[in-house]
Amino acid sequence: MSADDRAARLALAHLVEPGSRELGLLTRRVGAPEALLMAVHGGVSESLAGAVRARLDAAGLGPHTGSADTWAERIATTLADAMTERAGELGARIVTAADDEWPLALDDLTRISQEGADVLRRDTDPPLCLWLRGPVRLEETMERSVSVVGARAVTSYGQFVASEFAFGLAERGWTVVSGGALGVDVTAHRGALAAGGVTCAVLACGIDQVYPVSNSAVFERIAEEGLLLTEWPPGTRPHKTRFLTRNRVIAAATRGTVMVEAGSRSGARNTLGYARRLQRSPMVVPGPVTSAMSVGCHVELRTPGTVLVTRVEEIVEEIGRVGELAEPIHGDARPEDALDATQSRVLDAVAPRAVRSAEEIAAIAGVAGRDARRSLPVLEQHGFVVRTTGGYRLASRSRP
Amino acid sequence: MSADDRAARLALAHLVEPGSRELGLLTRRVGAPEALLMAVHGGVSESLAGAVRARLDAAGLGPHTGSADTWAERIATTLADAMTERAGELGARIVTAADDEWPLALDDLTRISQEGADVLRRDTDPPLCLWLRGPVRLEETMERSVSVVGARAVTSYGQFVASEFAFGLAERGWTVVSGGALGVDVTAHRGALAAGGVTCAVLACGIDQVYPVSNSAVFERIAEEGLLLTEWPPGTRPHKTRFLTRNRVIAAATRGTVMVEAGSRSGARNTLGYARRLQRSPMVVPGPVTSAMSVGCHVELRTPGTVLVTRVEEIVEEIGRVGELAEPIHGDARPEDALDATQSRVLDAVAPRAVRSAEEIAAIAGVAGRDARRSLPVLEQHGFVVRTTGGYRLASRSRP
Repeated sequence: MSADDRAARLALAHLVEPGSRELGLLTRRVGAPEALLMAVHGGVSESLAGAVRARLDAAGLGPHTGSADTWAERIATTLADAMTERAGELGARIVTAADDEWPLALDDLTRISQEGADVLRRDTDPPLCLWLRGPVRLEETMERSVSVVGARAVTSYGQFVASEFAFGLAERGWTVVSGGALGVDVTAHRGALAAGGVTCAVLACGIDQVYPVSNSAVFERIAEEGLLLTEWPPGTRPHKTRFLTRNRVIAAATRGTVMVEAGSRSGARNTLGYARRLQRSPMVVPGPVTSAMSVGCHVELRTPGTVLVTRVEEIVEEIGRVGELAEPIHGDARPEDALDATQSRVLDAVAPRAVRSAEEIAAIAGVAGRDARRSLPVLEQHGFVVRTTGGYRLASRSRP
Repeated sequence: MSADDRAARLALAHLVEPGSRELGLLTRRVGAPEALLMAVHGGVSESLAGAVRARLDAAGLGPHTGSADTWAERIATTLADAMTERAGELGARIVTAADDEWPLALDDLTRISQEGADVLRRDTDPPLCLWLRGPVRLEETMERSVSVVGARAVTSYGQFVASEFAFGLAERGWTVVSGGALGVDVTAHRGALAAGGVTCAVLACGIDQVYPVSNSAVFERIAEEGLLLTEWPPGTRPHKTRFLTRNRVIAAATRGTVMVEAGSRSGARNTLGYARRLQRSPMVVPGPVTSAMSVGCHVELRTPGTVLVTRVEEIVEEIGRVGELAEPIHGDARPEDALDATQSRVLDAVAPRAVRSAEEIAAIAGVAGRDARRSLPVLEQHGFVVRTTGGYRLASRSRP
């Protein structure tokens, strides 16, 4: 891609809200410089043209004079230069699809965007560019990444789970990705940081915005050890609709999404929905059915294809390499487990104190006398029963 | 079926532990009287013949003299008469597959029994007969029944859920079925009784046995208002292997099984496994991933085909008539829900105090000026924004 192309992308990212399907289709068809030309000069929908005009006016790049080409070039140069300069001031870098650092997984958003915006009632095209702050390379860190999302109004249960899971995932070399909100988001970031892992906060505002303010210290640590990431240019304020648009990036960039706690209307469900549509693993942590903060989790778990996870190992089994299997959960093994069906029945028929003959035991157990006579010495050998004058009784330690 | 047939079944139920696949196959092939003859006189496996002989000896019906036919008849008459008399003393009745009261659903056990005992490592043939105590008819009450099962070591969470679910199911006319254990079992029975509903305890011992003793008052209430039920003759003590054998009846007799709480080794998982194999609905209540008493629940929920349930309505939707659908869970509807995507974006761009022009709002929202000018009066009409000199600001009540 040419310098023109990059400049045009940066300009378009400034002029059009992220996710625009119309702009995405156009850019893929004619390239970014031509798409910019059409956006400022004609050949796009009235809505898109009007939106671009409103932003141009606000940027002091009002009605143009001279040729359309020159005008579009001037817009590209002016906006791209301003953004590049601002990125430098902020210690940030700007990455586009032309850069090595671009995570190809984001391009999967093209697919669901092409299925039509109506389904999710929202534009879902891939970002045009990303602002990044942090010492790690985006595409590398996203290779083995998982998003941990959930409600702002987290309970102590959700906090525990988000923290444990993020810590465990980071310990195992997984990048934890989340938003920048209070609740599950910030708890997950803290958990990953505590493990000395890489964590990535995907913001719904400019990289210069600190929202919420109470997370500012965590954001600084993330910028030092992980990645702050956004598709909005510096200066952009977070808005409700932007959080929802942002969620598609969290889902697309990662191998799977783990929803820890969510009320029935939680935005985390929107992220999980993207993960499902993108064929990333939609994973959900169950909770008490009495908790309002697990209602959204359980609704999702009742949707086929959702994976219930209770341990870090199960998350890794779901999204890791072939063979990264979770150990099955075994209860404590008990000595009785080794007995066969007849031996178990015979053991059941031996009394704790009363001494019973093999024949009595057989009748109680409902087995043949011969089977009882065969089983009892085995049970004696394993310490379950004691042989005594006239028959058998339970060994004192055999039934706790 | 003849009187002989009934007597032979009762005798076989005394002589052979429930679930025997060999005896079941034989009885279905040659009828109960002939099966009894073969069991006492030859033509069955050595294990089965030996087991029958052990019980005959214990009953004082030792080595016979005279013809085989006469001998088998004497056994049938003696044991059947004794059992019928004992049932009368206990206020119980005995029901066999020949009686109207027999729930046909139990015969489905034949199918999984024929698949082989090895799969479940346990004999799973239908009961030969059932002892009942209680005022309601078994087959009628099982028409609309659901089992509620779980751990003895129930937590307060499990107690709450078992009680609420059983109460709600009973209120809606569902029979609650469970075992007679402490924990989830007894809590479910109490919940159903509290709703004035029918509850059925399926025991793993004789109907004259009270186990555990602390549940005796509940058992009496169940016998007065619901049903006590067992396939073991009076005098039989509960054993560990009998609980597991009994579980198949709980699963088979009901339309579905709801597991409330279960540790990784809980016997309730065995009941759920039968429900799954019998194509009854296997339903499981999730819980905190931090609770050992939900570990078994979550392992089951990670098995495909298991239905996660959080409310009585969801249980009824799963096993009720077509159209008994659970109301979807809606969060509180919010006025913003009615807005379209553009209106939402425009609303996001209106400031709480600062007055912004339609053009400024359009530039912030990333929409065309025309779209902002169209949306703002709609937002004003719905009370979201206030029009004032120079533009718009948020109405004070619109963002709580």
